Amino acid sequence: MFKNIRIVMVNTSHPGNIGATARAMKNMGLQSLYLVEPKVFPSAEATARASGADDLLAQAVVCDSLDEALAECSLVVGASARLRSIAWPQLAPRECAAKVAAECVDGPVALVFGREHSGLTNAELSRCHYLVNIPTNPDYPSLNIAAAIQVIAYELRMTQEVAGVAAEKLKADDVEFATMDEVEQFYAHLEEVMVQSEFLDPAKPKFLMHRLRRLYNRARLEKQELNILRGILTAVQKWR
Amino acid sequence: MFKNIRIVMVNTSHPGNIGATARAMKNMGLQSLYLVEPKVFPSAEATARASGADDLLAQAVVCDSLDEALAECSLVVGASARLRSIAWPQLAPRECAAKVAAECVDGPVALVFGREHSGLTNAELSRCHYLVNIPTNPDYPSLNIAAAIQVIAYELRMTQEVAGVAAEKLKADDVEFATMDEVEQFYAHLEEVMVQSEFLDPAKPKFLMHRLRRLYNRARLEKQELNILRGILTAVQKWR
Repeated sequence: MFKNIRIVMVNTSHPGNIGATARAMKNMGLQSLYLVEPKVFPSAEATARASGADDLLAQAVVCDSLDEALAECSLVVGASARLRSIAWPQLAPRECAAKVAAECVDGPVALVFGREHSGLTNAELSRCHYLVNIPTNPDYPSLNIAAAIQVIAYELRMTQEVAGVAAEKLKADDVEFATMDEVEQFYAHLEEVMVQSEFLDPAKPKFLMHRLRRLYNRARLEKQELNILRGILTAVQKWR
Repeated sequence: MFKNIRIVMVNTSHPGNIGATARAMKNMGLQSLYLVEPKVFPSAEATARASGADDLLAQAVVCDSLDEALAECSLVVGASARLRSIAWPQLAPRECAAKVAAECVDGPVALVFGREHSGLTNAELSRCHYLVNIPTNPDYPSLNIAAAIQVIAYELRMTQEVAGVAAEKLKADDVEFATMDEVEQFYAHLEEVMVQSEFLDPAKPKFLMHRLRRLYNRARLEKQELNILRGILTAVQKWR
């Protein structure tokens, strides 16, 4: 079941953190590690810290972009320590685990972890349906990235230990969600129409796309809904 | 409250694990670190991995024996990955955290973590009232010691968060939602554009508006989002 859960590490600086993550993942029964532009990989330090979980490192998928790592995913949760100026739907680790465990039955889902010092950019964040926030000491809130992944992976494991009851309850209606690549194509199409109609000035984009992404990600587009929205955009362009 | 909770590390080999533990502790609001016969301490590697939690290392109490570290404690819980030939009362991490959080109000309590490769000896185990066992993948059960402490410390933190979470949720909800009449005007505007662009045939509306209403109602439009969507519709009409 956990094979559909992708742990995505973006632009990781320290290979030791990649190794420690592989170990934490395997301890908790996770297998699928995606590395977006890691600074150093493969690395002897990663292998040493993986300590017997080097099979996960060998199978890790190295990607050039976050979009590549998220392509087939229908649910994306980003880890964030920072408060954001634009509020994004937040999950506690336990809620996050329940949701991810319920949805990974149907297809790939992704948990995205940002850089050691700066986390996720706003552009990366805008790919996420939710942010997961680990409760911390407010005076010292920044967890090591492998430690954060350990906590989330532990909560995922715990969903299986309680016979997945909570997971079943959270399981969404029997709908087919749009995949991330379909959603990205919709955003690109929407932006195109906004620029063509001069609603959006590409020189001064402000937060318009960011706000629209937040809206549609919150709703979590179903495949059929996405097709309707694409249909409207195409019709408007033909009308013109 | 957490100042009465001692994290006791017995005979730790790798100073990096001591540093990572200090960081995990401070992240979760724990302060009191006891080191029983550490192989290397103090150490630059420990300080590096502590990453800003070096105050915990400076205050760490180094002991010659486990008994010295446990002296004033009324409750001792040992971490154990292994099944023991003599069954010992077991706690899951969440139960352990509840018990420790409840008892530390009255005086010092200890959580004891054994050696990286061999854990606790039977003699050390016999000092414990309970063993805490982190659920793992049975094929690869041995967590890194700092990762194990991170999980237990996280569950301790969670015992304090329940009240705080409700408050934060209220704060996150502090957005201005669109009123129903504004939303209805948006739907009318959207339908108008759909008809004008011949995406929607008024003679055969099918369930199109119904589906779009379902989508936007699910997201619960904020006032600002609604204004953006109305702006796009108006721009598209002018473009035409």
